[in-house]
Amino acid sequence: MRFKPYYFAIYLSNWIVQTDRMTSAAPTLDTTFHALASPVRRAVVERLGRGPATVTELAEPFDLALPTLLQHLRVLEKGGVVASHKRGRVRTYRIRPERLRRAASWLEKQREVWEKRLDQLDSYAMYLENSDD
Amino acid sequence: MRFKPYYFAIYLSNWIVQTDRMTSAAPTLDTTFHALASPVRRAVVERLGRGPATVTELAEPFDLALPTLLQHLRVLEKGGVVASHKRGRVRTYRIRPERLRRAASWLEKQREVWEKRLDQLDSYAMYLENSDD
Repeated sequence: MRFKPYYFAIYLSNWIVQTDRMTSAAPTLDTTFHALASPVRRAVVERLGRGPATVTELAEPFDLALPTLLQHLRVLEKGGVVASHKRGRVRTYRIRPERLRRAASWLEKQREVWEKRLDQLDSYAMYLENSDD
Repeated sequence: MRFKPYYFAIYLSNWIVQTDRMTSAAPTLDTTFHALASPVRRAVVERLGRGPATVTELAEPFDLALPTLLQHLRVLEKGGVVASHKRGRVRTYRIRPERLRRAASWLEKQREVWEKRLDQLDSYAMYLENSDD
């Protein structure tokens, strides 16, 4: 088997793209929350929650130009909210629950903090009320 | 008491600003998620979860120019995540749990949908396994 520079170049470029995705472009809470800050992107998440879908299937309910939808899908992918793979000419998207779970757990943590504080305020108010008697 | 056009103008401009805030600039899931898509703004939310704070108190932990912090606070206020009031020359911010609860409940709803689906896939896989016997 001969060394084929063409295949090697493809292999190399794939490796560079993957490494870039894993380091500088790794999804963070920033990119995840940003991904969710659009009605189209949230609708895509709602749809993919029911199962994987191709670009054509995702485009159907929206009155959007394909490049606009693809742009939204890129933002979702960058936010780690969806992943895609290509088989032949068809690209299929699926949900990636992990990043959504992290966003949810950040919100949940905040809720715990402020509800604990409000409970303490309640207790203090009751203490003041009782000390009036 | 004489009619004072100056006070009337202030009253009118306040009314216009308030009406604008209540209609076109009403917080949505878009503005709420956008508000959370920044480490500074999430740190402010974490701080305010522990209790109200003045702009000076909020500025303390950040190495930020005041106008930059105020810009972040405006984004949070637009997203309905925080509210502020001014007493004398001091503006105090507090958390508004309602919008954060809505964002959390949207995420929670998505989780329910996909976990139900994954459960169904599990059941189907078990059905296939059992029918092999």
